[in-house]
Amino acid sequence: MQLGRPDVPRPTLSAREKARRLLEQALGPSKVVTGEDACATFARDESEAEGVTPDAVVLAESADDILAALRVAREAEVPITPRAGGTGRTGGAVPVAGGIVLSTSGMKSIKELDRRDGVAVVEPGVVLADLHAAVEAEGWFYPPDPNSLADCCLGGNVAENAGGPRALKYGVTRDWVLGMDAFLIGGQRIRAGRRTTKGVTGYDVAGLLVGSEGTLAVFGDITLGLMPKPEQVMTLMVLFDSVRAASTAVETAISGGLLPRCIEFLDGMTLDAMRRAGNAIDARAGAMLLVEFDGDEHACERDAERFGGVADSAGALEVLVAQDAGLRARLWSARREMSRAVRKLTKFKLSEDVVVPRRSIGALLDHVTLLGEREKVRHLTYGHGGDGNLHVNFLWDDAEEMPAVSRAIEGLFHEVVRLGGTLSGEHGIGVLKAPYLPLEQAPELIELERDLKRVFDPQNLLNPGKIFPAGAHRAC
Amino acid sequence: MQLGRPDVPRPTLSAREKARRLLEQALGPSKVVTGEDACATFARDESEAEGVTPDAVVLAESADDILAALRVAREAEVPITPRAGGTGRTGGAVPVAGGIVLSTSGMKSIKELDRRDGVAVVEPGVVLADLHAAVEAEGWFYPPDPNSLADCCLGGNVAENAGGPRALKYGVTRDWVLGMDAFLIGGQRIRAGRRTTKGVTGYDVAGLLVGSEGTLAVFGDITLGLMPKPEQVMTLMVLFDSVRAASTAVETAISGGLLPRCIEFLDGMTLDAMRRAGNAIDARAGAMLLVEFDGDEHACERDAERFGGVADSAGALEVLVAQDAGLRARLWSARREMSRAVRKLTKFKLSEDVVVPRRSIGALLDHVTLLGEREKVRHLTYGHGGDGNLHVNFLWDDAEEMPAVSRAIEGLFHEVVRLGGTLSGEHGIGVLKAPYLPLEQAPELIELERDLKRVFDPQNLLNPGKIFPAGAHRAC
Repeated sequence: MQLGRPDVPRPTLSAREKARRLLEQALGPSKVVTGEDACATFARDESEAEGVTPDAVVLAESADDILAALRVAREAEVPITPRAGGTGRTGGAVPVAGGIVLSTSGMKSIKELDRRDGVAVVEPGVVLADLHAAVEAEGWFYPPDPNSLADCCLGGNVAENAGGPRALKYGVTRDWVLGMDAFLIGGQRIRAGRRTTKGVTGYDVAGLLVGSEGTLAVFGDITLGLMPKPEQVMTLMVLFDSVRAASTAVETAISGGLLPRCIEFLDGMTLDAMRRAGNAIDARAGAMLLVEFDGDEHACERDAERFGGVADSAGALEVLVAQDAGLRARLWSARREMSRAVRKLTKFKLSEDVVVPRRSIGALLDHVTLLGEREKVRHLTYGHGGDGNLHVNFLWDDAEEMPAVSRAIEGLFHEVVRLGGTLSGEHGIGVLKAPYLPLEQAPELIELERDLKRVFDPQNLLNPGKIFPAGAHRAC
Repeated sequence: MQLGRPDVPRPTLSAREKARRLLEQALGPSKVVTGEDACATFARDESEAEGVTPDAVVLAESADDILAALRVAREAEVPITPRAGGTGRTGGAVPVAGGIVLSTSGMKSIKELDRRDGVAVVEPGVVLADLHAAVEAEGWFYPPDPNSLADCCLGGNVAENAGGPRALKYGVTRDWVLGMDAFLIGGQRIRAGRRTTKGVTGYDVAGLLVGSEGTLAVFGDITLGLMPKPEQVMTLMVLFDSVRAASTAVETAISGGLLPRCIEFLDGMTLDAMRRAGNAIDARAGAMLLVEFDGDEHACERDAERFGGVADSAGALEVLVAQDAGLRARLWSARREMSRAVRKLTKFKLSEDVVVPRRSIGALLDHVTLLGEREKVRHLTYGHGGDGNLHVNFLWDDAEEMPAVSRAIEGLFHEVVRLGGTLSGEHGIGVLKAPYLPLEQAPELIELERDLKRVFDPQNLLNPGKIFPAGAHRAC
């Protein structure tokens, strides 16, 4: 999808040449990519957003490299777009006007894993799955688990405030970030936050940077809190004939005092996609929940039994308890691959990442069905049911259907806001959702956020064109 | 303790008269207190800070009253200091230059308690204990529990990012605040945050406001997340002969995978104070831990047994398991009253609220002993041992000892920072710790925080003199 950001013009030819020259002087040619083809791969991430091929890509290996790139961007007055794993879903790492892409994916060191205090210090290019493995080998646990965990990096996780299934019980990335080295446009270094679990000294600058989508600062070392690893995990797969029955079970279980670590939800169309991908699923099933409890063995068994009872009362077709690691792994791999599997079913896809209060899941799904019928657009929905965080996917094969898809998306966002929800639970606003920000936020709040952006980046050079809708009258 | 804030001058007589006149016009005389004696009680909070008697106190009953007061403050150009329960420990609610005090303690409505979604919406004057009672009656749970819970209000809890014993397992106030109505100087209303548990739309403005100590905005309705109420609670009291043995037990338990909801720590001098207050405590004991587990009965019993084993290995003198509510209540009431009980032992007291990494608790306590000996100042320490969040109290009776106390405090802060800790875990910086901010934070970070303050309050009228050290060359 081509991006139109008239408020972020491409730098002039002389500015681009100056940036390349200064980068090569500061970093040496081995860390600066300038070839057209090589740069072109950095114009995209895992979203549908098509950026503008950057003029140079910096492959940072250290904090000094990041600082040098940020200095050059300001000196040459070219935009600079930070990027870690490039697995984002809203175009957060996509350069909208060329300039510099600053890749930190080569900075992969887990610099500390403190066995006594339960603290990890990681570079921004550490892959989440690698962190999980290292931490769990020590008996500790880092809960956030976005489904891209095999590829996504901590720098991006922090920039987007990534979530994942376990957020239901353990919160999102921001709940685990204690502090970080943050590098500002122009090349200034700030140490924000702390190393201790508690701390209220000054404003929560570290918290403000989490989820700021690379528009305020670039991260160096990130300090994360850890918790003791839960002893046992038990997974349930529950099938229902309808999404209404499944959402009733979710609400009844949680308001009755059960707190699983995840409740993943998959609707009937998603189950069809799974069947087409070769998974054997009861033909009567129109919804699935994947529920996971952790704790000691006794608590897991008791909670699983209670959840099974709630599911039965809500009309479950089948409750499967997966105790062995092999079955658990198979269930999760189908869920984790869902986003990529769906892409194979269709030429075009947009996956929205909305959140509604738990009680409104059923109402939202009804509305999605209505929108699909009205606009004649295929759709499927899955996501983190316990949080009310649903990934509503619209699918189409012919570019001419795009206007209908846009109407369906806008209808979805209107309904989400009407139900007291929010446009993004864990993917961020990026560039794809920026036009819709005013649906949720009042002009006064957006203006305040623009003012905060100006404190960090008065010239709007750091990841411009993200979060805020295009507005030619304002600098960012 | 007299406050010296040369950077925040008292308003002129004509500005003060203008403010009073405009307030009475906007709010009517019943909501505006102007008598000298009545105003004088609003010059103090529960800290040692002595403020300047305000010229007028607004007793707000609604959002409109708050907005009116904020409009008048800007129009008359007088400082305005928000205040809820007035139980703060660093002078956050103390007016340093007179002007207006804006009290929201009359706004006591729990406006929503959503039994299905697990969300509460409260006005800023709701007392925390009242919220706990209302929420728990519905089977839900709001974890933050500062020891002043019988008197402190949610508005102040959010402004200071209050903690409490249960923060060890459940985090601090900011982990439970979803969103709020925020009112800015001049009378602008912002709706920040959300109602859903997840959400990453735009910058985390709500998160930035939590812990901003009333310097960025005044809160109206606050939306809080809740969790299901844990079924059972089990409390252990463990006595040790030394603080080293107690801190070894804390570290061993947590790094071995135990996660109690609280581990309160009390040193030998604190136990002496408790003995003098009439509590019978084994004369050999030089440290106490008060440990609490929650969950199902089986998990509580098993965890308590495991903790008991760890404590025995660390050389515990006695492990007492409190299963009945009466004994639990007695144990906690002694702990919760500690701060006020200590005040009775001494003419002057300063309680610091430092945090160090868990492994450094013993090292910090040794240093406190050293400082006490060197400066000949009495001291006692208690606090949230599991978090490394210790309340180090210095006690003295003669005003002439103050320079020695100041040296001890500065020595304490230096050691805390050296050990990788932070100056405040839950009380905030307020006015009492503002001079010490540069010990922990670099000039670049403080400058950035001042810039954030200017976005919200360019004239430095909203709670001036807090957080930032006095600096005549800067506006705030």
